[in-house]
Amino acid sequence: MTTMELLQAVSAGELTPAQAQLQLKLQPYEDLGFAKLDHHRALRQKACEVIYGAGKTAAQITAIANAMAAHGDENILITRLAPEKAEQLELSAPFWYDETARLGIVNRTQRQSAAGTIAVICAGTSDIPVCEEAALTAETLGNPVVRLYDVGVAGLHRLLSKLDLIMSANVIIAVAGMEGALASVVGGLVDCPVIAVPTSVGYGASFGGVSALLSMLSSCASGVSVVNIDNGFGAGFLASRINHMGEKA
Amino acid sequence: MTTMELLQAVSAGELTPAQAQLQLKLQPYEDLGFAKLDHHRALRQKACEVIYGAGKTAAQITAIANAMAAHGDENILITRLAPEKAEQLELSAPFWYDETARLGIVNRTQRQSAAGTIAVICAGTSDIPVCEEAALTAETLGNPVVRLYDVGVAGLHRLLSKLDLIMSANVIIAVAGMEGALASVVGGLVDCPVIAVPTSVGYGASFGGVSALLSMLSSCASGVSVVNIDNGFGAGFLASRINHMGEKA
Amino acid sequence: MTTMELLQAVSAGELTPAQAQLQLKLQPYEDLGFAKLDHHRALRQKACEVIYGAGKTAAQITAIANAMAAHGDENILITRLAPEKAEQLELSAPFWYDETARLGIVNRTQRQSAAGTIAVICAGTSDIPVCEEAALTAETLGNPVVRLYDVGVAGLHRLLSKLDLIMSANVIIAVAGMEGALASVVGGLVDCPVIAVPTSVGYGASFGGVSALLSMLSSCASGVSVVNIDNGFGAGFLASRINHMGEKA
Amino acid sequence: MTTMELLQAVSAGELTPAQAQLQLKLQPYEDLGFAKLDHHRALRQKACEVIYGAGKTAAQITAIANAMAAHGDENILITRLAPEKAEQLELSAPFWYDETARLGIVNRTQRQSAAGTIAVICAGTSDIPVCEEAALTAETLGNPVVRLYDVGVAGLHRLLSKLDLIMSANVIIAVAGMEGALASVVGGLVDCPVIAVPTSVGYGASFGGVSALLSMLSSCASGVSVVNIDNGFGAGFLASRINHMGEKA
Amino acid sequence: MTTMELLQAVSAGELTPAQAQLQLKLQPYEDLGFAKLDHHRALRQKACEVIYGAGKTAAQITAIANAMAAHGDENILITRLAPEKAEQLELSAPFWYDETARLGIVNRTQRQSAAGTIAVICAGTSDIPVCEEAALTAETLGNPVVRLYDVGVAGLHRLLSKLDLIMSANVIIAVAGMEGALASVVGGLVDCPVIAVPTSVGYGASFGGVSALLSMLSSCASGVSVVNIDNGFGAGFLASRINHMGEKA
Amino acid sequence: MTTMELLQAVSAGELTPAQAQLQLKLQPYEDLGFAKLDHHRALRQKACEVIYGAGKTAAQITAIANAMAAHGDENILITRLAPEKAEQLELSAPFWYDETARLGIVNRTQRQSAAGTIAVICAGTSDIPVCEEAALTAETLGNPVVRLYDVGVAGLHRLLSKLDLIMSANVIIAVAGMEGALASVVGGLVDCPVIAVPTSVGYGASFGGVSALLSMLSSCASGVSVVNIDNGFGAGFLASRINHMGEKA
Amino acid sequence: MTTMELLQAVSAGELTPAQAQLQLKLQPYEDLGFAKLDHHRALRQKACEVIYGAGKTAAQITAIANAMAAHGDENILITRLAPEKAEQLELSAPFWYDETARLGIVNRTQRQSAAGTIAVICAGTSDIPVCEEAALTAETLGNPVVRLYDVGVAGLHRLLSKLDLIMSANVIIAVAGMEGALASVVGGLVDCPVIAVPTSVGYGASFGGVSALLSMLSSCASGVSVVNIDNGFGAGFLASRINHMGEKA
Amino acid sequence: MTTMELLQAVSAGELTPAQAQLQLKLQPYEDLGFAKLDHHRALRQKACEVIYGAGKTAAQITAIANAMAAHGDENILITRLAPEKAEQLELSAPFWYDETARLGIVNRTQRQSAAGTIAVICAGTSDIPVCEEAALTAETLGNPVVRLYDVGVAGLHRLLSKLDLIMSANVIIAVAGMEGALASVVGGLVDCPVIAVPTSVGYGASFGGVSALLSMLSSCASGVSVVNIDNGFGAGFLASRINHMGEKA
Repeated sequence: MTTMELLQAVSAGELTPAQAQLQLKLQPYEDLGFAKLDHHRALRQKACEVIYGAGKTAAQITAIANAMAAHGDENILITRLAPEKAEQLELSAPFWYDETARLGIVNRTQRQSAAGTIAVICAGTSDIPVCEEAALTAETLGNPVVRLYDVGVAGLHRLLSKLDLIMSANVIIAVAGMEGALASVVGGLVDCPVIAVPTSVGYGASFGGVSALLSMLSSCASGVSVVNIDNGFGAGFLASRINHMGEKA
Repeated sequence: MTTMELLQAVSAGELTPAQAQLQLKLQPYEDLGFAKLDHHRALRQKACEVIYGAGKTAAQITAIANAMAAHGDENILITRLAPEKAEQLELSAPFWYDETARLGIVNRTQRQSAAGTIAVICAGTSDIPVCEEAALTAETLGNPVVRLYDVGVAGLHRLLSKLDLIMSANVIIAVAGMEGALASVVGGLVDCPVIAVPTSVGYGASFGGVSALLSMLSSCASGVSVVNIDNGFGAGFLASRINHMGEKA
Repeated sequence: MTTMELLQAVSAGELTPAQAQLQLKLQPYEDLGFAKLDHHRALRQKACEVIYGAGKTAAQITAIANAMAAHGDENILITRLAPEKAEQLELSAPFWYDETARLGIVNRTQRQSAAGTIAVICAGTSDIPVCEEAALTAETLGNPVVRLYDVGVAGLHRLLSKLDLIMSANVIIAVAGMEGALASVVGGLVDCPVIAVPTSVGYGASFGGVSALLSMLSSCASGVSVVNIDNGFGAGFLASRINHMGEKA
Repeated sequence: MTTMELLQAVSAGELTPAQAQLQLKLQPYEDLGFAKLDHHRALRQKACEVIYGAGKTAAQITAIANAMAAHGDENILITRLAPEKAEQLELSAPFWYDETARLGIVNRTQRQSAAGTIAVICAGTSDIPVCEEAALTAETLGNPVVRLYDVGVAGLHRLLSKLDLIMSANVIIAVAGMEGALASVVGGLVDCPVIAVPTSVGYGASFGGVSALLSMLSSCASGVSVVNIDNGFGAGFLASRINHMGEKA
Repeated sequence: MTTMELLQAVSAGELTPAQAQLQLKLQPYEDLGFAKLDHHRALRQKACEVIYGAGKTAAQITAIANAMAAHGDENILITRLAPEKAEQLELSAPFWYDETARLGIVNRTQRQSAAGTIAVICAGTSDIPVCEEAALTAETLGNPVVRLYDVGVAGLHRLLSKLDLIMSANVIIAVAGMEGALASVVGGLVDCPVIAVPTSVGYGASFGGVSALLSMLSSCASGVSVVNIDNGFGAGFLASRINHMGEKA
Repeated sequence: MTTMELLQAVSAGELTPAQAQLQLKLQPYEDLGFAKLDHHRALRQKACEVIYGAGKTAAQITAIANAMAAHGDENILITRLAPEKAEQLELSAPFWYDETARLGIVNRTQRQSAAGTIAVICAGTSDIPVCEEAALTAETLGNPVVRLYDVGVAGLHRLLSKLDLIMSANVIIAVAGMEGALASVVGGLVDCPVIAVPTSVGYGASFGGVSALLSMLSSCASGVSVVNIDNGFGAGFLASRINHMGEKA
Repeated sequence: MTTMELLQAVSAGELTPAQAQLQLKLQPYEDLGFAKLDHHRALRQKACEVIYGAGKTAAQITAIANAMAAHGDENILITRLAPEKAEQLELSAPFWYDETARLGIVNRTQRQSAAGTIAVICAGTSDIPVCEEAALTAETLGNPVVRLYDVGVAGLHRLLSKLDLIMSANVIIAVAGMEGALASVVGGLVDCPVIAVPTSVGYGASFGGVSALLSMLSSCASGVSVVNIDNGFGAGFLASRINHMGEKA
Repeated sequence: MTTMELLQAVSAGELTPAQAQLQLKLQPYEDLGFAKLDHHRALRQKACEVIYGAGKTAAQITAIANAMAAHGDENILITRLAPEKAEQLELSAPFWYDETARLGIVNRTQRQSAAGTIAVICAGTSDIPVCEEAALTAETLGNPVVRLYDVGVAGLHRLLSKLDLIMSANVIIAVAGMEGALASVVGGLVDCPVIAVPTSVGYGASFGGVSALLSMLSSCASGVSVVNIDNGFGAGFLASRINHMGEKA
C-alpha cells in the first residue's frame, strides 16, 4: 500500500488515524521516496545477500544463512570464508564452496540474467584467488564470465594473443599486484569500462598492494576505476551492475 | 582493405609481394586483430579526442586542436586549461570555454546519444570545479546530466530530499573532499554504479585528498569504485562509457 | 592543613621550622596549588583506577589490583585483558569479566551517578568489541548507556529509524572502521558532543584504522573529536567526563 | 502540525488525501523524528551559522551573510577570512573582524550563556592564531574564555605557575605544534575534558602538524580527544557544546 | 711513480726518507690501491666533471667552470641550470645550453666513444625535460642516442610500431610519470638493461613521482633497475657506463 | 619463413591466401619485428627460465620444472623456495639446492660465458641470504662472482682493505639494510655500474628496508641504480645482462 | 633565602606568615628542588637566551632583544632570521648578523669557555647554511669549532685526507642531505659523540630530508644520535653542552 | 714501526723495498693517520666488543664470543639475545644474562670508570626492557646508573618529586612510547644532554614507535637528540661516551 492509498483509506474511514500511523511506522521510508529502495532491497534479496565471513564465527554464519534460506533466498554469498570454518557450518540448504576464492554459496542457482560478457584477467598465478572471488561473484549474479589468467605485461605477446577475447567483453576486471601495469595497458586497448583490482601480491616496495593501488589510480588510460586492495567481491559486484545496464532499458 | 583482401590481391597478381608488404606496414595492427582498435579509435574521434592542457603551451594546444579540427573532429576536449592560456589559443574552429571547470571544447556539438541520466553530486561549493569537469565531459560525450551540489552528509536532510533524482540516475558520480563520506552514503542508497572522485579540498589531516581517497576505497557500500584525486574528466568519461552500455545491445 | 595554616602554626610556635619542612615534603604539591590535584586523585580512586592489562603479567596485575582493593577501591578497571590471563588472576576481591570487551572489573558496583545518557553506536559486528569497551567503561563510571549496533551508513534507513534514541543522548560515541563515515553522518544529525573512535576493522586501503582515523579528523561536521584507533576505553572515559558536566554546577 | 494531527485532519475531512500528501512532502522529516533536528537548526541559527571563508569569493560571502542578516541572524561567523577579502565585503549589518584569528563576525552580540570557563592554552607565539580562532569562536557562542599563551612544556614552571587557572576551567583547549606534548601534560593534571588541537607550526620532522597530531592521538593521558590540524574553530565549537551541558539539565 | 718505485729510489739512495715521505703525502692514496681511482678521476676529467647547478649562484658556477676549463677540461656538464642563471654566467670557454633539459655544457665536443645505442623513451610530452637531460648527458659522454617520445602504454600500438628501434638498443632509459607502467612493458620486451626513471609528472595519487617510483621498483619484468625521481642525469650517466662495457675488453 | 617469403609464396601460388593467413596467425608477431623477441626467448630458455617458488605448491613447481626439463632446459632457477617445499619436489632431473639463498636449480651446469667479474658485497651477516641469491643467480647465468661479506661502512678499514677486488670488478652488487650507506660509498670509489639492493634487515626506523631504499635512491654517487627490497635475484639477473655486454660486440 | 631560612624567619618573628607566603609565591619552585633550575636559568642568561626569528615580526624581535639587552644579557641568538627582517630591527645594543646561517647575535662576545674542539662536517655546498647555524651557535656558546665542508662519502679520499682533524675533535656534528651516509661513515671512524643533522637538501626520493633522517636513525655505527631536519641550532647547542662536560668536574 | 721509521730502514738497507712494501700492506692505514683508529679499536676491545644476537645462531654467537674471550676480552655484550638462544650458548668464559633486557655479557667485570651519573627514566612498565638494555649497557661500560621508572608526564607529580635525582645526572636517557612527551618535559628541566629513545610501545596511531620518534625529533626543548626506535643499546653506548668526556681532559 502506497502513502497515497493509505491516506485515501483514512479519508474513506477504512483506517483510523492510529492504524495509519502504525502503517507508516512499519514502512517508514516510503513517503520519503524510499519505495525504490525497498524495491531494490527485494531485488537484491532475490539475487544474493552477502555475508562477510572473515569477522564472524561459524555459528553466526550458520544462523544468518539459515535464516535467509528460510526466507527462500537464493545465491547467498559468504565471502572470505576459510576452509576450516566452511566445514563447521551446519546449513539447512544446499551449500557450494570454492577453496581458491574462499567463497561459499548457499542455494546456488546458475541462471544467466545478462547477455554481455565480463572478462576477468590477471598476470600471475598468485592473483588467481582474487580473480576467482571476482569471477564467481559475477557468475552468481547472472553474468557470463571469461577468465584470462596468463597475460602479464612483462610478456606482452601473451596479452596481445588474447586481444579478441578482451575486446569482445562488456566489462573488464583487471587484477594485478606488483606494479599493477596491467590496468593501464588493458585500459588503453579497450573501449569498455575497466575495473582495476590491486592485489597484495608482491614483496619489498609493493607494500601489500599500495604500489599497485597508486599505479592504477594514476593510470594514464581513461575508462579505468579502482576498488580496494584484494576486493574481488567488490569488483565482481560492480561489474555485474554495469553489465546489467543494457537490460534496464 | 583487410589482410584477406590483400592476400587475395597478391594471389591474383594485382599486388606484388613488395607492394603488399608496404601495405602491411602502413596498416600495421590490422593483422594482429587490431581492426577493432582502429574502429574504436574512429569511434573516439567522432566523440572527442582529449588534450591535457596543463602540460602544454598555448601554441602546442593550438596546433593539435587545429589539426584535429581540420580532420573534421568534433567536441575536442581540452582539460585543465587555465583562462590565461585559453585566451592565447588561435583556433580555426568554434571554441567554447568554461572557467569553473577549466575546460575548453572545440567544435562543440550538443547531441545526446544516451537515454539514461548521469547524476553528479557533491557536498560543498569547493568541490564544484571538479564536478563541472565531470559533468561537462559527460554532456559532451552525449549524456543527460543532473547536478546536485548541495547534499553533504553533515546535513543529511539535504541529501534525502533529493532521493528521487539520485535514485533515478543510471550512473552516479559522487565528488567529495574532506572525509569523503558522501560516496558511502550514496552507495548504500542506490542500485546503479557509483564513481567516487576524491577532491583535494580540505585542510590539515585531509592531506590534499588522501583522506577522501582512502575513505572512498574503504567504503563499506558495494557498487562503488574510485578514480584519481580531482579527476573529474576521468569520472565523466567512465560514466559515459557505462551509460552507453544499454545502447550497445 | 593548608600552607597558610602551617605557616601560622610555625608562627605560633606550635610547629618547629623542621617539623614544618617535613610537612611540606609530605604534601609536596599543595603550595603550588596541587591540592586540587590530590582531591582529584581521591575522586578518581573512588571511581576507578585503570590497569592497562596488555603489557603486564597475571602476577603483576594481581599484585596491583589486590593492593588497590586493600585500600578499598571499587570498580577497578583492567583493560585489554586476554581471557587466558584473566583466568590466571588470583584476586582477593570480587571479579567480573567481559570477554567481548576484554575488560575486567574488580569490586564492581553498579551505581549511576549521571542523569544523561551516552549512546554508543557502530555499523558492523566487527566493531562491537571496541564498542563494548567504551560502553562498559562508561557504565562503570556511572553513566546510563544506550547501544545501537546496527546502523552503518551504507544502509541509511537503519540509522534513520533510530533517530529518536540518537538524538536524545547527552554524548555520542561513534565507532567505525572501514571509511569511518558514521561519525560525519551522526555529527550532522545531533547537537551533542560526538566522540569518534576509528577501529582497525577493514582490509586493503583501510590500513589498520588509518583511513577511518583520517576520515574522522577531516569530518565536515562540527562537534566531532577523535580518540586513538580502537581506544574504546578512552572514548568511554571522556564521554563520562562530559556527561558529568551537568552534575558539577 | 504533527503526523498524527495531519492524519486526524484527513480522517475528519478537513484535508483531502492529496493535501495531506503535499504537507508530508513539505515537512518531510517530521514523522521520522526530525522535529528535534529542526529545533536544533533554529537553535543554531540563533547562535551563529558558520561561513567557511577560504573557498569563497568576497561577493559570495557578502551575499550569504547579508541574506542571513536579513533573517535576523546574529553572531554570523566567517572563518579563514583573509584581511584583503574582509575589506572587500559589502555587508548590510555591523561587522567585526579579528586579523590574528582571521575571523569575521556579523551582527556580533556579546552575551554569555554558559557559566563555566573554557581555558585556551598554548606554548608558543606561533600557535596564537589557532588559539584565537578557538577562543573567539567560544566567546561568540556565549562562553567565558581564559587565555594562557605562555605555558610550553619545555619550561614547565610557566605551566605550573598557572595551575589554578587551568584547574578551575570547565573545558580546556590545548593548542600545540612541534611535538604536541602540551596536551598530555595538561591532560594528566586536570579532570575536565581536554580538546587537543595540533598546529602546523614547526619544521623538519613536524611535517605540517602530523607529529603533533600523532602525539596527541597517542597521548597516555585520559580525557583527551583531538580535532583536525589548525582547526581552532572546531575546537571552540565543541568546547562550547560541552560547556553548555550543565545548562541543559 | 709507484710506491715500489719510490721505495726502490729510497733504497738506491736517490731519495732521502724525508723526500719519500713527502711524496707519499702528495700522492696520498696510491699505496692504498688508489692508483685506479686516480686513473679514473683523470678519465672522468677527460669526459666531464659535473656541476650541480641548482644549489649554486651564477658566480660560483662561473668560478668552478672557468677553473676547470683552465685545466683543459672538456664537456663540463652543468645540470639543473635555470635559464636566468645560465645567462648570468661569464665563462671563458665556449658554452652550449639546452633550455628543455636545463643543461649547460662548457667546451662541448661531440665525439662518440661507444658503438652501441642508448634508447631514451617516454610516454608523454611532460616527461621530455627529464628525457632530454638523460639523452644529452649520454650524448655528451660519447654515446649514440635514439629518442622515442610518443610511446605510452595507454596506446600500445605506438610502442609496438617502434619495436625495431627499441630492440636494437644496447641500453634503454624508460622515463615515465603517472603510473610508470612503461618500464615494465619495455622490460618485458627487450633483453638489454633497462634504467627506469620515475618523473614527478601527474597529479592526485601520483604524489610527485612516488607512484611511478614504487611501480617501477615493483616491476615484474627482470633486468630493470631504478634511479631517483626526475634524475635524468643519473640515468644518462649510468647508461653510458653500461654502454661502454663492451669497449673495456 | 619471413613475411616477405610468405608473400612471395602466395604470389607464386605455392600458398593460397587462406593458408597464408593461417601462417600469419601462427607466427603473429613476426611482421611487427617480434622475431628478435622469439630469438630472445630461445636464448633465455637456453640460459634459464625462472620459477618464483614462494607462491606455488610443491606439486605446481614439480610440474613446471619437469616440463621444462623435458624440453632440455638447463639451469632452471627456482627462487624463494623454502627448504620444506624443496624436499617435497619430485623432479625428473638433477636438482641442486642452497638453503641460505633459498634457491633451487634443476639441470645445473656451471659454464662461464662472461669474462668480467661481478662483485657481490655487503656489510653484515644478516644480508648474506640476499647476497647469495644474487651471487648464485649471477653464477648460474655464467658469470664469475667475487663475494665480499665483511665490509660495512661503520668499519671503513674493512672496505678499504678490499679495494683491489672491488675496483677490478665489472659490475658491483651492493647489498645493505639499515641505512644503506654502502651503496653510496662504493659508488664513489668505482667506475663500473653499481646495482644497489636494499634489504629488510634492521629494526625501528629501518621500516623493513624503506630507509635503505630511500637512502640508495638518494645516493649522491653517480652510476648507482636500485632494485626492489631483498630482490637478490633481480640484481643478479641485471648484473649478468650488463656483464655480458662486452660479449655482444 | 632557602625555605628553611624562610621558615626560621617566621619562627623568629622576623616574617609574618603572610609575608612568608608571598615569598614562597615569588620563588615558587625552590622547595620542590627548583633551585638548580633557577641557577641554570641564570647560567643560560649569561650565555644566551635564544629567539626563534621565523615566527616573529621585526617589532616583536626588537622588543624582546632590547629587553634582554637591558638586563645585560650577552650573546643573544636570533635564529632563522631573514636578511630583510634583520635590516628592520632597531636594536639598542651591538648587532652581528650572518646571512648564510641567517643568524643574528646581539651583544656578541667571543669568549671560549671550553677546551675541546667541535668539528662541523658536511658533504656538499648546499648543506653549508645548516652547518654555519650549528658552527656559529657552538662558537657563540664558547666552543672552538673546526669546519670541514668538502668531505662527502661519494669521494671518500676527501674525507680520509682530513682524518686527523676529525679524530681530534671532542664532538662531531655531521650534516648531510641526500642519503645521509656521512653520519654512518664518520660514526664508524671516531670515538667521540656524533650528532647527525639531516638536511632538506636533495630532490625526488629525498623527500625534504626524510631519507637522510631515516638513514641517520638507522645508522649501523654506534655513538650517533640525530636532531630534527635542518636543525643546525639544536646540534650546535647540544654539542656545546657535551663539550662543556669536561669543564664541570 | 711508523712510515718514517720504515723508510729509514729501507734507506739504511735494513729492509728491502719488497719487505717494506709488504709492511705497508700489513699496516695499510698507518700513513693515512689510521694509528689513532687502531688505538681506538684497542680501546674498544678493552671495554667491550658488541655482538648483535638477533640475526645469529647460537653456534655463531658461541664461536665469536669464545674467540673474543680467548683474546682476553672482557665485558663482551650480546644484545637482543632471546632466552632460548642464551641457554644454547656453550661459552668457555663466565656468562651473565638479563632476561628483561635480553642482554648477555661474557667475562663481565663491574668496574666504574666514570664519575658522573647517567639517569635512565621512563614512564610506563612496558618501556622497561628498552630502559634496562640502556642501563646495563651503560653500567657495563663503567658508568654509575640511576633508574627512574615511574615518571610519566600524565602524572606530572611523580616526575617532579624526583627532580633532585634527575637534575644531578650527567646524562639523561629518556625512554618513552606512546606520544613521547617525556623527552620534551625532561629536556626543559635539565641542563645536561638528553638522549631520547622512542619505543614501539603503544597501539593505534602510535604506529610502532613512529609517533614517539616524530614527537622527540620535533621537541621544542634544546639539548635533546634521538636514537632509533627501541635502541636502548645505542642510547647507553652514546651516554657512556658523553659521560666519559670529563675523564679525557
